[in-house]
Order: sequence, then C-alpha cells, then structure tokens
Amino acid sequence: MLEEKILRFVEEDIGQGDITTLLTIPFGTIVEAEIIANESGIIAGIEEALTLLNSFDLKAGTPVPDGSTVKRKKVILKIIGDARTLLSIERSLLNILTRMSGIATTTHRLVEKLRRSGYKTRVACTRKVAPGLSYFDKKAVMLGGGDTHRLHLDDLVLIKDNHIAILGNVGQAVKKVKNAVSFSKKIEVEVSKEGKAIEAAKAGADIIMLDNFSPQQVKGTIALLKREKLRNKVLIEASGGINKQNILKFADAGPDILSLGEITDSVKAFDMSLNIVKVKKSKT
Amino acid sequence: MLEEKILRFVEEDIGQGDITTLLTIPFGTIVEAEIIANESGIIAGIEEALTLLNSFDLKAGTPVPDGSTVKRKKVILKIIGDARTLLSIERSLLNILTRMSGIATTTHRLVEKLRRSGYKTRVACTRKVAPGLSYFDKKAVMLGGGDTHRLHLDDLVLIKDNHIAILGNVGQAVKKVKNAVSFSKKIEVEVSKEGKAIEAAKAGADIIMLDNFSPQQVKGTIALLKREKLRNKVLIEASGGINKQNILKFADAGPDILSLGEITDSVKAFDMSLNIVKVKKSKT
Amino acid sequence: MLEEKILRFVEEDIGQGDITTLLTIPFGTIVEAEIIANESGIIAGIEEALTLLNSFDLKAGTPVPDGSTVKRKKVILKIIGDARTLLSIERSLLNILTRMSGIATTTHRLVEKLRRSGYKTRVACTRKVAPGLSYFDKKAVMLGGGDTHRLHLDDLVLIKDNHIAILGNVGQAVKKVKNAVSFSKKIEVEVSKEGKAIEAAKAGADIIMLDNFSPQQVKGTIALLKREKLRNKVLIEASGGINKQNILKFADAGPDILSLGEITDSVKAFDMSLNIVKVKKSKT
Amino acid sequence: MLEEKILRFVEEDIGQGDITTLLTIPFGTIVEAEIIANESGIIAGIEEALTLLNSFDLKAGTPVPDGSTVKRKKVILKIIGDARTLLSIERSLLNILTRMSGIATTTHRLVEKLRRSGYKTRVACTRKVAPGLSYFDKKAVMLGGGDTHRLHLDDLVLIKDNHIAILGNVGQAVKKVKNAVSFSKKIEVEVSKEGKAIEAAKAGADIIMLDNFSPQQVKGTIALLKREKLRNKVLIEASGGINKQNILKFADAGPDILSLGEITDSVKAFDMSLNIVKVKKSKT
Amino acid sequence: MLEEKILRFVEEDIGQGDITTLLTIPFGTIVEAEIIANESGIIAGIEEALTLLNSFDLKAGTPVPDGSTVKRKKVILKIIGDARTLLSIERSLLNILTRMSGIATTTHRLVEKLRRSGYKTRVACTRKVAPGLSYFDKKAVMLGGGDTHRLHLDDLVLIKDNHIAILGNVGQAVKKVKNAVSFSKKIEVEVSKEGKAIEAAKAGADIIMLDNFSPQQVKGTIALLKREKLRNKVLIEASGGINKQNILKFADAGPDILSLGEITDSVKAFDMSLNIVKVKKSKT
Amino acid sequence: MLEEKILRFVEEDIGQGDITTLLTIPFGTIVEAEIIANESGIIAGIEEALTLLNSFDLKAGTPVPDGSTVKRKKVILKIIGDARTLLSIERSLLNILTRMSGIATTTHRLVEKLRRSGYKTRVACTRKVAPGLSYFDKKAVMLGGGDTHRLHLDDLVLIKDNHIAILGNVGQAVKKVKNAVSFSKKIEVEVSKEGKAIEAAKAGADIIMLDNFSPQQVKGTIALLKREKLRNKVLIEASGGINKQNILKFADAGPDILSLGEITDSVKAFDMSLNIVKVKKSKT
Repeated sequence: MLEEKILRFVEEDIGQGDITTLLTIPFGTIVEAEIIANESGIIAGIEEALTLLNSFDLKAGTPVPDGSTVKRKKVILKIIGDARTLLSIERSLLNILTRMSGIATTTHRLVEKLRRSGYKTRVACTRKVAPGLSYFDKKAVMLGGGDTHRLHLDDLVLIKDNHIAILGNVGQAVKKVKNAVSFSKKIEVEVSKEGKAIEAAKAGADIIMLDNFSPQQVKGTIALLKREKLRNKVLIEASGGINKQNILKFADAGPDILSLGEITDSVKAFDMSLNIVKVKKSKT
Repeated sequence: MLEEKILRFVEEDIGQGDITTLLTIPFGTIVEAEIIANESGIIAGIEEALTLLNSFDLKAGTPVPDGSTVKRKKVILKIIGDARTLLSIERSLLNILTRMSGIATTTHRLVEKLRRSGYKTRVACTRKVAPGLSYFDKKAVMLGGGDTHRLHLDDLVLIKDNHIAILGNVGQAVKKVKNAVSFSKKIEVEVSKEGKAIEAAKAGADIIMLDNFSPQQVKGTIALLKREKLRNKVLIEASGGINKQNILKFADAGPDILSLGEITDSVKAFDMSLNIVKVKKSKT
Repeated sequence: MLEEKILRFVEEDIGQGDITTLLTIPFGTIVEAEIIANESGIIAGIEEALTLLNSFDLKAGTPVPDGSTVKRKKVILKIIGDARTLLSIERSLLNILTRMSGIATTTHRLVEKLRRSGYKTRVACTRKVAPGLSYFDKKAVMLGGGDTHRLHLDDLVLIKDNHIAILGNVGQAVKKVKNAVSFSKKIEVEVSKEGKAIEAAKAGADIIMLDNFSPQQVKGTIALLKREKLRNKVLIEASGGINKQNILKFADAGPDILSLGEITDSVKAFDMSLNIVKVKKSKT
Repeated sequence: MLEEKILRFVEEDIGQGDITTLLTIPFGTIVEAEIIANESGIIAGIEEALTLLNSFDLKAGTPVPDGSTVKRKKVILKIIGDARTLLSIERSLLNILTRMSGIATTTHRLVEKLRRSGYKTRVACTRKVAPGLSYFDKKAVMLGGGDTHRLHLDDLVLIKDNHIAILGNVGQAVKKVKNAVSFSKKIEVEVSKEGKAIEAAKAGADIIMLDNFSPQQVKGTIALLKREKLRNKVLIEASGGINKQNILKFADAGPDILSLGEITDSVKAFDMSLNIVKVKKSKT
Repeated sequence: MLEEKILRFVEEDIGQGDITTLLTIPFGTIVEAEIIANESGIIAGIEEALTLLNSFDLKAGTPVPDGSTVKRKKVILKIIGDARTLLSIERSLLNILTRMSGIATTTHRLVEKLRRSGYKTRVACTRKVAPGLSYFDKKAVMLGGGDTHRLHLDDLVLIKDNHIAILGNVGQAVKKVKNAVSFSKKIEVEVSKEGKAIEAAKAGADIIMLDNFSPQQVKGTIALLKREKLRNKVLIEASGGINKQNILKFADAGPDILSLGEITDSVKAFDMSLNIVKVKKSKT
Repeated sequence: MLEEKILRFVEEDIGQGDITTLLTIPFGTIVEAEIIANESGIIAGIEEALTLLNSFDLKAGTPVPDGSTVKRKKVILKIIGDARTLLSIERSLLNILTRMSGIATTTHRLVEKLRRSGYKTRVACTRKVAPGLSYFDKKAVMLGGGDTHRLHLDDLVLIKDNHIAILGNVGQAVKKVKNAVSFSKKIEVEVSKEGKAIEAAKAGADIIMLDNFSPQQVKGTIALLKREKLRNKVLIEASGGINKQNILKFADAGPDILSLGEITDSVKAFDMSLNIVKVKKSKT
C-alpha cells in the first residue's frame, strides 16, 4: 500500500517519461550514488525511500536507520543500479526524504528542548498536514519523538469548537457520545474556557484540549481540576499559539501534551543531495 | 480529475467516518460558515476549495478570486450546507487553502520585491514540491505571480549535473538531444562553470541554468555570453542559494529567471480559520 | 468515497453490460418498483442503497430510516426511474441491503435478549468480516444496536495471543506500549488466564479481553479484579464461544462487553425482493 | 489483478498501520506459524492466501490444495517470515480462507447428498453474493463441486420476472433476443408457470429456470416438455425455496440444475486459527 | 463506470492542464459548437460522447442516435457551454467518436455487402482490439450490425490452436470441458482440419471455428457435417484470411458466422471535425 | 506505471478468468513459445511486452530490440513459462505488439521515403490517437523514426483554429501567451492563411503550423517569411491532407515538420502470431 502511494508520487512527477534521461544516458549504464546530508538533524523516510528504490530494482543500503541523528556530510543512502532509472526517480526520492526528515528534525528539537529542561510533556502534531500526506507527515513526527495524535477522523472522538457552536452544551455532548461510541475509543473535548474544562471532565471526557490558553490559564485550569479531584481522570492537551520560543513556558504550566500545527503545516525541508559517485561500464 | 485528487485527500483524512460529528451533530442540521484570513497575503486554492465543497453538495461563494490579495480578517469563503458534511471535510478544506495560499503569498512577496526595484526577472519554482502535490504547489506559484518551470519530466529537456557526471561532455550531449527530441521541446542545461555555459550555448541550448553561481559569477557569465554574441540566443536561469535576502543582488546580475526550491519545499501555511456563523433549524 | 466503493460492486457484477436488459427492455422505459421485506427485522443499508440509486439517477424514497424495525411485507424502498438502469443494478442493490439488514437483525436480537433480561452489556462484533466489507458490516452492527469494536488496526492497541506468544510477558508489553503509543489510543490486552488479566490491569491496560473463558471463569476473574481494586480501572470484554444460546449466562458473569465473530462472518441474508409495480410509457 | 483485490482488503483492514504490532514486536523477528482447521470440510482460498502471503514476502507451503477435504486439527498452511508482517495481515488472510472454505464446504455437502442418492443434478449458486466478492464466492462454489452460474451480467442472457413484467410476452422476448445477441451466448428464461416454460422452449431458449416451483410442479413441467418433444432442447434449472432438507425431492423431479441463493448469501465461516509455532532469533 | 473510463482518456491527454486554453480563452466564455461528419457512414460513440460532455457540464444534443447512417456535412452533435472546457476535451471527444464510427462504418459495409447478396451470415469481430478498448471497439461493431463475439475470456469456452497444441486430442478436450464448465457457457473449438471439425462436433461442441480454411474447405466441411447429421447441432464460424474482397465467397460456402480481426485491429478513423459556430458574451 | 497500464489491459480482457485455459490445460504445464513476424517492418512494443511477461513470471528474450527492422518469419520473442498464464495473456500481448509495430512500420516507411529523396524533414504524429493509448502510440511513432509532437496539453502552447475563432487576433494572442507562460514552453500557432503566418512569426511564435495548405501554399509562405527575415526564427509545420502519395511534394516545399493524423488514428496492425513450440513435462 505504501508502495502504491509512493509510485503515485513518481508517476505524477514523470508524466510520460523522463525525456532528458532517455535521450542522454546510454541504455544499460550502471551507477553508484550517495545521498548526503547537507545539514544536521534526524533522518526520516528511509523505509519509504527503500520501498521506492526497491520497486524500481535499485539496490540500496544505509547506515542510518529511520529516526537516527546525522551530522552534516553524512551519507544517508548508498544506491547502486541502472542510471536511467535512478535519474528518473531522483527528485521524487529526495522530496520524500527531505520533507520527512525536515519534520522529524523540527519535532525532535522541540522534544529535546523539553527533555533537557526536565519536562516529560508530549509534543504532538495535529491534522494540519499537507493534503494527502498524513501518513508520511505523522510518521515523521513519530520518528522525531513526537506524538501522532489522531490519524484520521475515526480513531478518536474530538469534540471541537465548531461542534460546540452547534450543540451549545459541552457536558451533554460528552455524555451523549460516551453512550453511543464504541468502547474502544477515547473522548477528547476542546474547550476555550476554564469552566468548560471542568464541565467536560465531570461528564467523563478522557482528554481535554485547552485551546488558545496562555500558559497562565493552563496552569490555572489544572489547579482547578486538582481541586475538583478531576486531574487524574483526564489528560490535558494545550494547543494554539505554542512555538519553539514559548514551549518551555507552556510545559511549565503542567499539561500532558503540547500540540503544534506548524510541525506539519510549515515544514522546512531537510537539505540533502544525491551525487553520482561512480559510473560503471554499461551492460551490453 | 482535480475532484478525484481532492477526494483522495478527504478519504485519507476521514478513515471510516467522522465519528465525532456523527455522534454529536443532529442529522439534517444546516449551518452557515465563513473562512477568515488571519493574516494578509495572496489567496490560492479557491478553485480547489469550490470543487471540494461542490462535490459534497455544500454551497459556497467568494468575493476573493484565486490570486487576489487579502487583508487580515477578510472573509475568504462563505459556505452554507449540511453541518455534518462541513465538519467532516473542514480540515481537508483548510489544509488545501492554507498550503496553496502560503505558497502564493511567499512567491508574490519575492516577485514584488523585484518589481519594486524595477527588475523584470522571473521568479520560478523547481520540482522540490511536497510528494504528490506538484499540481497544487505549482498552481499556487503561478497564482502568486511566479513561473511554474517544468511541470514534469516530459515537458522540457533539462540536462543536470548528474547527467553530465555520466556523460562527460556538455556540448555533445546538447547536440545529441537536439537531434533526437521532439521539435516541440526546449532544451536546458545546468552548468557549474562559466566555460560550460558558453559550450552549451554554442551547442544550441535554449536555456542555461547557472547552478550555485554567486551574483558576481552570474554577471561574469552573462558578460562573456554577450561577448560571444550568444546572450540573445539563450535564456539564463540562476539557481541555488537564492533567498529573499539576496534576491535583488541576483536580479541585478542580469539573468532572465531566478529559481528557488524553498518556495515549494519549505512552505509556511497561511493562517486561516473556519467559523460557524449561523445554525439553522434542522430539516425534518 | 462510499459511492466509489458501491460503484465498484456494481461494476464487478455488470462486466461489460447487462446484455439481457439491453436486448429486451425498450430504451426510455420508466418503471416504478418497490423493495419488500419478506421477513421481519432491522433494516440497514438504506443510506448505501440511496447512494447507489442516486448515482444512477434513480429516484427513491423510504418510510424506513436505517436502523428501524420492519414487519414482513413492509415496503422498504420505492424507486422510480429508467427501467434498464434499475434492472442492471437490481442485484447489487439487493445484495447490499440483504447483507447489511441481515447483520443488523442478528445483532439486534442479541442486544434485545440482553436488554429484556436487564443487562446493559454491550454486544460487539470483531474484525471477522467479509473481506473488504468492514465498513458495511460494522455499520450494520451499529445500526442493530451493537458496538463496532475497532474499525481497523490503527485505532486501538489490541495485544493478542500471537503477540504474547512472541513477547512472553504481558505486563512488560503493556508498559512498553503505554509509553510509546499516542495518548489518543486505548490499550486492550487479550488474556487466556485469570492471572494474566490481573497482570495486564496492573500494568495499565484500559481494556482486558478474556479469550475463551467460560462464564464461570469470567465471573471469577472479575471477582479477583475487584479484590485487587482494579475492576473500575478496566473494561472487561468476553470473547470466544459466545452465541445466542449462552449469551445470557455470559452477561450474567458481569463483563462490560460481549464480542461475537459470527455476527459478521456467518451472516444470514435478510429476505427481500424487488418488484416492478408500474410500467410507464416510454420517453420518446 | 487478484493480488490487487486482495491488497485492497488488507489496506482497508490496516488503516494507517498495525500500531499494536509495530509497538510490541521487535523489528526483524522471524516466526513460523500454522493455520489449523478447527472443523472438517473443504478448503478453498489457498491460491488467494498464497497470493497474499507472497506479496508480503512471507513464505508458505501447504499439503492441502484448493478443493481438498480436511479433517479437524489438520494443518492448512505453514508460514514462515517476518512476524510484524504476518501479524498485520493475519485477520485478512483468515477472513478470505474462512469465507471461501465455508462456501466450498456447504456446496460440497449439497453435492455429496445428491451424488450419494445417485443424482447427477448440478448444484449452482446465484448472483446473491457478498457485494464485491463475486469472484471469491463463485470460485469457492466451484471448488466445492458446484456450478458458478453466470459470473456477471454479460455472460448469459437471463430474462427474469422483472423483464417479463415489463415485456409481457415470453416467447416474443426470446425470439427478439435470439436475433440480436451474439452467437456466443446462451439464452435462459425464468418462468413462474408451466405454460410459460413451454412457450420459452418453443421460442428457442437454451435454458429454462422454474422459479419457486414445488418439486411436483417441476416434475409436471418436465413431463409436459417431454410430451412436446422439447425436453432435449433445453436445460431445466429449478430455483427458489430449495435447501438441504428438500434438495433430494427437487433432484428427484428431474431438473438439470438446482440453484440456491443461500450458498453465497448466508455463508457460515469455516472455523480456522493461526498459531505461532516457533519464534526465531531476530535478524540483526 | 463508462464515465470513469472516459475520464481516464481525458486525464491522459490533458496532463496538468491545457495551458494554451487557459492562457488564451477568457474565463467564462460560452460557445456553441458542432461536430460535423466529413464523410458518410455509421455513427457510433454518441452515448460515450454525451457521457463525456455531461461530466464536464457541457450541454449537447444530437439528431443522430448511435448506429444511424449519416451523409457528409451532417451535424452529429451540437454542443453549448464553457469554451475553456470544450477546447480542453475536444481531442478526446473526437478520438472516441472517430474510432468508434470508423469501426461501425467498416462493419456495416461488410454486413450490407452480405445482405445485398442475400446472405444472413453474421459478421463478427475478434479479441484483436486496441489494448484496453475492448468495450468501445465491440460496442462499435454491434452498432454497425456486427456480432461482438466473446467479450472477454470468461464468457465462452474457446479451445484454440495453442490449447490443442498442448492437449493433443480435440474430442477429449471438449468432453472434459463439457463436464466441468458451468451450464451457462457455450463451448467453441478452433480446428485446422476437416476431420477435427467432425471430432469436435461429435464430442458435443456448440460452435466450431474453421481456422484459415478456404471457402472451398469451408463448403466441404459443412457437407461432411451434414452427412454425419451434425450440421444442425453446431454453429460454424469461418475465420482467418477473410476480407471485403472475398467475403461473399466465404458466405457462399455456408457458415453461420464470418469473423475478421481487421474490423478492430486495423481501424480507419471516421473523418469528423469540431467547429465553433458562435461565441457568446462571457459570464461576468 | 507502465506495468499498471498494461495490467489494466489484461484485466479488461480476462474478466473473471480464462475459463478455457483453466479447464483444459493441466496445472503446472510448462511451454516454450515464439512470437513470429508474418510480414516485414519495424518492431515496437518489446519493452511493453517484456514488462507484461515479467509481471506474470514468464521468462522472455528477444534478438530484436525496439525499433529494429525484421523480415517475415523472423522470431520476435521467445517465451518460456507456465502454459496457463501464457495462454491467458496471449491476446493482450499480441494486441500491444501488433498495434505498436504497425504504427512504427508505417511511420518508418514515410520517414524512409523522405530520406531516400534527400529530405531531412521530420515526420510527426498528432494527438489523434486511440483513446487512452497516447503513451503507446507516440512511443511507437518515435521508434519508427518519427517525432512525437506534444505528449499532452501541458507541454506546448498550440493556439489552434478554434482558439482563434474565439480570440480573433493571432498576433495579440501570441503576445499575451508569451508573457504569461512558463519560460520552459515553446509557442506554436496554427494558421490557415499566409498573412497570419507572418503575423504569428512577428509576434514571436516559435513554431507555425500551416493548416491544410497545399505544397504550393507552403512554399509561398516560406518564401514570404524569408523575405521578412523571419524564416530562421520559426519552425514550420505543415499539417492536413498529407499522405504517403503526396508527402514528397510537401517535403519539397521546405517545411521543417510534416504531421499526419493517420499514423495513429488509422493504424494497420502488424501481422504476428504466437506459436507453442515445445510442451515440457508438468511440474508436480
């Protein structure tokens, strides 16, 4: 299935054929190539890259498993095989690796920042992914040490602002859902005020998302939940307005999870390049 | 075809159903909603958004055609229709609009910077797009006033560094291709040295890409081409290391096109949100 | 997306065309038809049927919403439209309705049996569905009043016998998973012995599945969990060997959920038929 | 093509990944597993199972070719390969095997019942299959010794009750079709009265389906056809109300084919399970 | 399903967009256009053309139903709608119509030649179609008055030369198949010698294909079958080496069916063109 | 991607299975087969044939690379493998090879005719291909020595008669496009009068298509362009009414390219056949 998705990427890029390569590279030329990191960070997309290379009969090996840290100039993948094929898929291959490694690296930096200051708070992404790339974006977050949050709309009940805009009452919504939903799902509620957090927790929500709360407000809400003996019954997710500058302040407020849309919707590609390192005699 | 691509995005996001919405929003609820710009910039993705809304029977109108400039707080789309449906596709809808508008906005800023300083140089993107999103990313570049460059590997011959690493000789490669390729295609060559630019131009290339040249080197190469009476026979594209800080210096060196990978591989999402503004009586 | 799945069913059935209908029914014949229940039970598949009819431009109405109870001879759907089209999709339409209604009816009888005896225990299906029909089979279970259990392998952690056969230790497995999995997922463990249930509960599992326990063993395990003050921290699912004969005994043992593979893997189709009730003049 | 269909089943079941297996089973674990029959019957789905296992690089062998009889406790498939992969596809694999073997077993019992009493009558299924599973359901019928009947709407002309409800006249319909349809197709007519059977035979039908006739009526119609010297020109199919209790009575009435919808629309899954029998050292 | 196939044709032709039309035709321009026959013949592909136009929201009407005869200069379709859309699909639309009408016209001329000389012999095509276009090619044959022969490999048993090369014995092959195949299928056998035709007929074949027989040999074989009282039990198809020059000689030899590969594998496109006849004011 | 397209061809042809082969050829039979040319010409489709054979695990070799010339009786492909598989795909395989080789042969004859008379003029096809077969048809043209012209609507701007019917002014259209289109594209204009050719060339078109010009008119227009010093700035394509009889006259008029729709829309299949040459012992 992964293969099918990846092949669709290549197909879109190739159109009816890589005319440059067909017209310049002799049939049967074999090359060795390397993909090199041009910066430091976390590598993601190795499984996807190998799947792609494999399905085009290119042999590849790597000293760098998914999720590992690399320094600048490090070889990420060594590839050997038909030159025409490799040059035709080069850009698709790099586009997957650079996006996924970019996401993993950003995620990892946020997680490390928290860990170095002694916080165990989880760093989660949201559903703000590139259209159609949820699988890849969320896997990269995981490889960077982050939490994938829900994968699609069927694996967690998450009652959001717009649901409540229609429903009116948070507590009743939670109760209604609790009754009807499969026992296999958790229930999360997004709230914009402290009072609503208490109401949701009392109604039996498993997770409460504090939307656009300041660190101060997060701390206050958690204190209130403790007073009401509800803190241990729920997980607290803070979301909205969190970034690498203020993340420690948010962590300090005591939530279980910090979620950031920008991890996946404002990705900076990881800088890599593919170099031909050896041209072998053509097959005849 | 566009519709099919967009539906695949929604499908991936929904899984087997938006359980939250099904369990909370009464069947038949009708809502009015607005998508609001939370920052200023260029809007892209309107055609795609309308296609998506349409195929789910949601009515929508917009005062903001694709490519137009909006200010913060501006309404981008007004939507009316079934609440369950709208909430189920909300995130997919926003993910398309925020990515495309982010790309268009960034492109437009670069183009404007050149225009304001009196340069007519084109700003082009590359094939460094999010995997599978070439259509959307390139269209957003165009709406931002940029040049889409080739759309896939079959619509321009572009002899790159790795082709030459295998072939050895730039001039011969160009001649061979010129003979064999359809008359309907242009031929571009990527060169890393001044001398190779001259060689490519002499061999009949239509476009020459100066890869990782400094502004100084770009200027020097162009001067040399002029001396050889070749400047009018080729278009010059500078690529590599160009960013919003140094773009004017590059433009000043006199190339026809400036191309930047980061326009499409390091996108910053445009900040928008969807608000329910009216809940109508349910249909019975 | 639903439409696409359903069209694939029709496509498979039709091959290159319904030659009988094309050769016998005059172009432009309009008919009215009814689908009639030939037995009593719960109707499911109405949304799917309407989607199918709609996408072939057949108008249809129904007094029987999904999940409602019907008596024998009741009209389930009234259809009006092109005769050729209707006859070509008749079997696909009925195959969806009869399977889904068969599942809903069986589920509902089990649920009712429990409710009439005063049990609130949930009746759940498993992943033992017809290949490719998970969406339809699980929706039918829900319409019959049952619990869908997990929809696919990504929406619940369920550590089963074969995982433990490899891992050895239940408790450690649970702890390891709890650390690594997204906060948005529950964790369930299948156990074959009372002691393992305690171990899993202590390690923090959210749900414990007692696999092939007798009602006696279920009761004993629950008693033990109570003694250990763990009963309120977990949901208990009994699975294996449960059927309509013994379901009350299992319910009496006190679990929260009873799951049965046969609801979806040994379906009895609901008996329905489609009758032409009026042939209208052809369009000319 | 078979592979593609089967992969779609797996894809639907997996969603974005088998999170349980990924989080519990160490990368590179190799296992040996067996699929065991928990009851006696006819095995079907072996080719499909091997195709599935193969496309996930799992090695498998079987002493039990498709269509063979197994006793309880018999090993149906031995599998060796990557543990994560096997556990992720286990349920899809079993769902295919248990449905197909269930159908083959039921079919075979009906056929054997006839053969033991000396009847050569064919046992056929109908188009009442699970939506989208026609290929699998009909192949299982064939492996159980049954007749697949038409595979889709383009491979046999079958004029049914609803066609005649529109057309009025059986004989004319048959003649019209005989003229127009390709010489490569047979023509079957469904009739609800003896007289219509004669009319259809006279008009040149190849096969006549006696719909909801009692054994007595079947016998009478055949006698009449003999008297009219038409018996040898047509095949007689009895359909409707036939089940394992009354099948011998119907066979005794002398038709060539007995068809039963319940063989494929009311399937009882064959009871099988997959057991891990050996865990090998992980690859490093 | 037809729509899906046709959209794939358009998609292949368009690539990422009709750049010419987008850059030249103002948004919102409405045009009226006509498709004109530039020669005389039989029109086929109208249903397909309307499906295509419809799915792009172009309105179209035609005085020329599928299968009708047109003279040169006749209007085949009148179209009204968005100019950009129409110009983008123009070529796909014409490619469907010109191929199908070309096939229908050729077929019709062969059929007419036979009818005018008093022969009722059927003219059939074979499976020698353009790859992937079986549906379209065979439908065009039918509209031209020809016989579609089998639609795919599952709707007729046709034992060909290469089967017999492996099997050796024609008679045994037929008997074996007769036993095993569904009662709903006919059995045809390809033979290269008179003796084999008798053998096949005796074994119970429904149809016998005389492969590469001269008209003389066809006549001789039929005479022999008559002598053996087998002529009325089988249909005779002559195939191989038949063309419009010699078709009457073959018909005169007395077979039931004449089949020609060239009807579908050596198509001459029907000459048509699309003209814009009116440009309406743009919508604003 | 090629594989996927080809498999779709096979799938369409096979339906639910090659019943003849399944019922006649023993499981495990291995055969050697040859595809033989029954006429002389240029072979195309070898890469596609090998892809098809490969994906069904049939081994194949060929002494005849794509684009090479063969004489009658020449072996084109030798195949060894499972007999059932080979017979099931035989027709799909031949349909690809015979169409592509037919196109390549026709193209080559036209090119050779020009070369033998000393003309270097290119012979190009158009977009008049069989629906959905653009990739295959254009590749065959290339292998026959022809020019593929644009592959789809996004790789060349080609302003045609119907665009100008709407726009009115050729010169303005060219200027508008030149400004807006990516620098990577050429611009071609179709003109029906000499004067328009001059106008288009002045406005900066890269290629001018003289539509339905007589050789005389082509010659005149070129003379005029020379006088205006525009001849070297544009390529001249003559199109419409060109065929193998008059092609030398057109070439003599001096255009750069001659394009013919009939190369791809009125294909004559290349005559080939597949013969079983050896039947090996079955595997057991």
